[in-house]
Amino acid sequence: MEFSVAVIPGDGIGPEIIREAKKVLDKAGKVYGHRFHYTELLMGGASIDVHGVPLTEETLATAKKSDAVLLGAVGGNVGVSNWYSLPPELRPEAGLLKIRKGLELFANLRPALLFEDLKKACPLKEEIIGEGFDMIVVRELTGGLYFGERKTVVENGLRKAYDTLTYDEEEIRRIARAGFETARKRRKKLCSVDKANVIDSSRLWRQVVKEVGKDYPDVELSDMLVDNCAMQLVKDPGQFDVILTENMFGDILSDEASMITGSIGMLPSASLGKTKLGLYEPSHGSAPDIAGQNKANPMATILSAAMMLRYSFDLEEEALKIEEAVRKVLSKGYRTVDIMSPGNVLVGTDKMGDLIAEEV
Amino acid sequence: MEFSVAVIPGDGIGPEIIREAKKVLDKAGKVYGHRFHYTELLMGGASIDVHGVPLTEETLATAKKSDAVLLGAVGGNVGVSNWYSLPPELRPEAGLLKIRKGLELFANLRPALLFEDLKKACPLKEEIIGEGFDMIVVRELTGGLYFGERKTVVENGLRKAYDTLTYDEEEIRRIARAGFETARKRRKKLCSVDKANVIDSSRLWRQVVKEVGKDYPDVELSDMLVDNCAMQLVKDPGQFDVILTENMFGDILSDEASMITGSIGMLPSASLGKTKLGLYEPSHGSAPDIAGQNKANPMATILSAAMMLRYSFDLEEEALKIEEAVRKVLSKGYRTVDIMSPGNVLVGTDKMGDLIAEEV
Ligand SMILES: CC(C)[C@H](C(=O)O)[C@@H](O)C(=O)O
Ligand SMILES: CC(C)[C@H](C(=O)O)[C@@H](O)C(=O)O
Repeated sequence: MEFSVAVIPGDGIGPEIIREAKKVLDKAGKVYGHRFHYTELLMGGASIDVHGVPLTEETLATAKKSDAVLLGAVGGNVGVSNWYSLPPELRPEAGLLKIRKGLELFANLRPALLFEDLKKACPLKEEIIGEGFDMIVVRELTGGLYFGERKTVVENGLRKAYDTLTYDEEEIRRIARAGFETARKRRKKLCSVDKANVIDSSRLWRQVVKEVGKDYPDVELSDMLVDNCAMQLVKDPGQFDVILTENMFGDILSDEASMITGSIGMLPSASLGKTKLGLYEPSHGSAPDIAGQNKANPMATILSAAMMLRYSFDLEEEALKIEEAVRKVLSKGYRTVDIMSPGNVLVGTDKMGDLIAEEV
Repeated sequence: MEFSVAVIPGDGIGPEIIREAKKVLDKAGKVYGHRFHYTELLMGGASIDVHGVPLTEETLATAKKSDAVLLGAVGGNVGVSNWYSLPPELRPEAGLLKIRKGLELFANLRPALLFEDLKKACPLKEEIIGEGFDMIVVRELTGGLYFGERKTVVENGLRKAYDTLTYDEEEIRRIARAGFETARKRRKKLCSVDKANVIDSSRLWRQVVKEVGKDYPDVELSDMLVDNCAMQLVKDPGQFDVILTENMFGDILSDEASMITGSIGMLPSASLGKTKLGLYEPSHGSAPDIAGQNKANPMATILSAAMMLRYSFDLEEEALKIEEAVRKVLSKGYRTVDIMSPGNVLVGTDKMGDLIAEEV
C-alpha cells in the first residue's frame, strides 16, 4: 500500500530523531511491501525562522491532506532562544496547539510503561514497581483551559487575567469513548480523573463518562480526584490501566506518569480525531542542549511511527514488528546515553536507528 | 500567655488526632507557662449531621474571633457515606472551602520533607533521594478555578459547563510575597510554577512574581512549567526549596510532593492570611476506614499545632520543641502502623500522643 506522511522535524533534536524513524519506516515498507511518501513541513521555531509564524495556513492545509503526521519536537531553550521574546501566540509551542486544533485531534494517547530491560532507570523502589506497570493516559486535547476564551484587562486599576475552562457533553462523550475503546483493547480498566469536588466542568465530566460507560459494561470504570491521582501514580502505578482525563490535568499527569517510568526517551504518543488522520510524536521535548550531537534517543519517535502504522494505516502486524525490534535492541544491551547503565553498549542516534531497522 | 483556639475535629480520624494534638499543646503550655482555651466547632460531615450544612455562619463567626483554628480532617467515604448524595455545595469539603475563603486564608504552606528516620518509606530509589529533600509548597488558596464563576447550562441542546480561572495582580502579589518571605527564612530559592505557555493567568502570574522578586534580591527566583514540575518532583526532588503556585496546580503538586516523602501521615500544613489568624491541619485526609480504631498517625496534626504556635502565636521556641519531640520519638523507634517497618515499636494513636507530650 501507499501512504502520504507529513513529516515535521521541528526544532532541537527533532531532525535527528525523525531521520531514524523514517529509516525504520522505510525498512518496514520494504519488508511488507508498502511505500511511504514523505512531505517535509516546517513547524515551531523552524517555521518562525522562515515564515515568522510557528505554523502557516499552507502547512496546516498540507498536513490535512496527508494520511498522517509524524512530528519530531518543537521549541527551544526559553532562556536563550529569540523565539521566546515573541508574543505567546507566535512562539514555537503555539504551532503545536494550532495543528492539534486544526486537525481536530481531540484524543491524545500517551502510554507510560516500564520496559523490562530498563527497570534500573525507574526512579521508584523495587517494592513499588512490583510486577511493573503499563498504563496509558487518554487526554482530551482540543478543549478545556487550552482553548477557552481568555483575556488580560485592567479593572479598577489592577491587571487581571481570565481563562475559561469549558466542556460540553459532546466533547466529553467523544473522548470518553476513545478512553473506553482503548481500555477494551487492554486490561479493561478505565480510571476517569477529575476535580468533581470543586469545579463544574469536572462534575459534568464525571456524569457524562458514567453515561458513556453504560455502552461498555465489559470495562470497569472508576473515578479519581486529580490530586489523589498525582499521589497514586507515585504510590502504586501498577493499579492503572487507562487514565482518562481533561486537557490540563492530562498534561500534568501524563508527564508525571512518563517520568515514573524513568525512560521518557522511550515513550511515544498519538493524537487522534474522528478520521484516520493522526499526529504522532515522542512524549519528550526538543532537548536543544544536545541537538546535533548524535546523542538523542530516537526510540520514542520510532515507537510513535509504530503507533502511526497501527492507528492511521491499520498496519497492526507492522507496528508490532517495530515494537518488537525496539525491545530486541534493548535486550541486546544497546543504549543511547539517556538510558545508559554500566555493562551496556553506548550507541549514537544514527546507530540506534540502524540497529532497530535491521531487526525489522 | 493565653490563646483561644477554635478546634475542629471534623470527620473520620479527626477527633482522635485532634485529641493528641491538644495533649501535646497542653504539655507545652504547662512547660512554657501558656494557656490554650479551646472552643470545639463542627465542620464537614459532623456539621451536616447536626445542622444540614457543612459550615454554619455562626461557626465561621466563632472561628473568626479566635486566635487560630486547628482542624483534624473533613470528609467521608464517597462511595458509602450519605453526605455525597447531597449537592456539591452541601458536601463536607465545601465547609473547608468556605472557611478558607471566609477567613481570607490565601496562603497555604505545605512542607514536604524526608524524615531521616523514615527514609525507608520513601517510594523513590536511594540514588534519587540523595542527601534527602526538604521543600515547602506555597499554594494560593482563595482564587483561581476554586472560586471563579461557574455554571452548567444547556446550549443548543447540549449540557455545557463553565469554570473560570482568574487572578488579579494584587492576589498574585500577596501570595508571591508569602512565597518570597518563606524562602528568605529557608534556603532562599523560590521556584514559581505556572503554565505560561498556554494560559493568560499564568502569564500575568509570572510577570507579577518577577516584579515582586525585585524586592527580594537575596532570593533566587526561577520559573517552571507545571507539567515539568510534576516530572522534576519525581526525578530530583532535592532541587526544590520553595515552590510557589496557584490554587489548582498547588493542590496537585503539593499532594504529589507529600507522596514522594512516603510519610503523608507526618506532614502538617498552615493556611494563612493578612492577620495572625491561621488554620492548621494535617496534609492527609480523614481516613474513614480506620476511624475510631486508635490506628491513625497523630504526628501531622501535632506538627500542625507546632506551626500554629510559630505562625499565629509567635512561639518559635515552643514550636521547635514540639518538632524536636516528634523527631526524638521517631528516632527511639516508635511508629504508628502507617510508617511501621521491621524492628520498630508499633504504638496506637493515643500512646504516640503520650510519647510526644512526654518529650516536650
Ligand atoms: C508545549 C505544550 C503547549 C504542550 C501542552 O501543554 O500540551 C506539551 O506540554 C505537551 O504535553 O504536549
Ligand atoms: C477537599 C478539597 C476541596 C481540598 C482542595 O482541593 O483544596 C483538598 O484536596 C486540599 O488540598 O486541601
